[in-house]
Amino acid sequence: RTMTSFTSRISPNERTSLINNAFEAKRGSYSPYSKFPVGAALLTADGTIIKGANIENASYGGTICAERTAIVKAVSEGNRSFVGLAVVTDVASAISPCGMCRQVIREFCALDMPVLLIPGDYPKQPDGEWDSKPGMTEGGVRETTLGDLLPDSFGPEHLDLPRK
Amino acid sequence: RTMTSFTSRISPNERTSLINNAFEAKRGSYSPYSKFPVGAALLTADGTIIKGANIENASYGGTICAERTAIVKAVSEGNRSFVGLAVVTDVASAISPCGMCRQVIREFCALDMPVLLIPGDYPKQPDGEWDSKPGMTEGGVRETTLGDLLPDSFGPEHLDLPRK
Amino acid sequence: RTMTSFTSRISPNERTSLINNAFEAKRGSYSPYSKFPVGAALLTADGTIIKGANIENASYGGTICAERTAIVKAVSEGNRSFVGLAVVTDVASAISPCGMCRQVIREFCALDMPVLLIPGDYPKQPDGEWDSKPGMTEGGVRETTLGDLLPDSFGPEHLDLPRK
Amino acid sequence: RTMTSFTSRISPNERTSLINNAFEAKRGSYSPYSKFPVGAALLTADGTIIKGANIENASYGGTICAERTAIVKAVSEGNRSFVGLAVVTDVASAISPCGMCRQVIREFCALDMPVLLIPGDYPKQPDGEWDSKPGMTEGGVRETTLGDLLPDSFGPEHLDLPRK
Ligand SMILES: [Zn+2]
Ligand SMILES: [Zn+2]
Ligand SMILES: [Zn+2]
Ligand SMILES: [Zn+2]
Repeated sequence: RTMTSFTSRISPNERTSLINNAFEAKRGSYSPYSKFPVGAALLTADGTIIKGANIENASYGGTICAERTAIVKAVSEGNRSFVGLAVVTDVASAISPCGMCRQVIREFCALDMPVLLIPGDYPKQPDGEWDSKPGMTEGGVRETTLGDLLPDSFGPEHLDLPRK
Repeated sequence: RTMTSFTSRISPNERTSLINNAFEAKRGSYSPYSKFPVGAALLTADGTIIKGANIENASYGGTICAERTAIVKAVSEGNRSFVGLAVVTDVASAISPCGMCRQVIREFCALDMPVLLIPGDYPKQPDGEWDSKPGMTEGGVRETTLGDLLPDSFGPEHLDLPRK
Repeated sequence: RTMTSFTSRISPNERTSLINNAFEAKRGSYSPYSKFPVGAALLTADGTIIKGANIENASYGGTICAERTAIVKAVSEGNRSFVGLAVVTDVASAISPCGMCRQVIREFCALDMPVLLIPGDYPKQPDGEWDSKPGMTEGGVRETTLGDLLPDSFGPEHLDLPRK
Repeated sequence: RTMTSFTSRISPNERTSLINNAFEAKRGSYSPYSKFPVGAALLTADGTIIKGANIENASYGGTICAERTAIVKAVSEGNRSFVGLAVVTDVASAISPCGMCRQVIREFCALDMPVLLIPGDYPKQPDGEWDSKPGMTEGGVRETTLGDLLPDSFGPEHLDLPRK
């Protein structure tokens, strides 16, 4: 059986590095309320990897997810160009970013930017089940893109449209 | 030329009512910062329509969009079952909800719930351009669904998954 | 022993109504994650009371508190002038709004607007303990103001200040 | 005339470093919507300074302030103990954090943690006006604390209180 092929702009080395960094990032999670630690790793155009973890808040609404932590950290340090994102949780399947994170990522990333959703028990062995699903790649990593996660997105250009 | 057909669970009357209420809702917008008023109308399973508008905040981050205003208003009043959503802005094209709103809607609505994106200059006359695009319906309203706007969504069921 | 006196612009009837409505509002709470239901009631300048409850979200960050639900509901319905707010939880003491809510309230309310923090077991009987604390009023309700809760606040006027 | 004295746990060197880092941090701001760049610098218990800037979003609600950027960056990198915060904008006066930031800071910092609000034209020369105000210190820096900015705060301990 052949693994789903996926044309990606990230190299195998970068993929490995993103996955490792996402796991490392997860150790920085502060998630006493959800008990759902998440780690994210963001690859910049110049090859730097920036990590983020979810930081929860007693108000719940003040919670900032791993993906957004990585983005605001990266952008505030001067990075504006990103080529890949990886996300991992403690759950044994690929978990998708929430809509808030998709929107914040959207501000800075191309719609075809690869997003790797890593199962918490990576690397999974092929079992004929997960690995036959579309988008599934080595080790049980689901590979998607920002555009696939946030179709018909709202973005900066819409604020510039003329009002009636 | 034939309009895109779209199987929807909302009736023509409900559609008209959603559109009218979204326009009315927009009048309640408080958007001094973006100058981008948005109105939303939410149809409950029992036929009630609940309106919302975007309420901005000097902190920017404290801003709550029209769709979320409608949802929290509806839910806090005891509605938990929704069958349609319409959104309108002052822009002469169909504008999509932001990712935060898609996520908040996701908590309460089925993935196949119709979402009507109404152009601010509704009803548009067919011009062979917009009306040949997929999802376009009468008057230039783009009809989509929550699931199309937030594929592979994160939701309540994921928080219940066993952790490694 | 004398109860703390507090000069308030809300009448005894309005106070009672705010308290009752806050309890009723709490029944609309959707709080499966925190299991911390909150109800809020907002009194407009023309005597209307608008209710809100906390509406949580699986993303945690998408959660909107009771106070903000009440404010966005009220403002989107055309109310811009408020004279009192009451908040109640299931906890047997007066619980304060989170900082996000204080900020959102700040956009629309005067700093001297009374805020009533109602214990979940209202009315408490005087016991010489709670009722000797500053700000405590009949039934164990702590009466404070927006300005006391958010001193030196950031607001719309700061965005208008000239930049260097 | 004597400057307001203020007992602080940060040394003059740390103060200078916080101020310099807040200005540097501001250069990382992404604020195309508000045109209100903000920089923040957070001092950890072990003497490290972590910078943050405001990162805005077309959705407005997705905006994350400088103070929260600094906090989530610091916490996700393993810092949980903070002893000082400095904030600066482009405005020629001391500008306070928004309520959302106060709440997020509250999760991790002691109420007596010093917060330095730096005017954008720091150092100001004494002019008998700003420097006679309470809390004003060298160069026009207003020195306050988290507890002064968020009195009667809501925090993690409240979520643990027994429900009725
Ligand atoms: Zn998220
Ligand atoms: Zn939105
Ligand atoms: Zn709140
Ligand atoms: Zn802030």
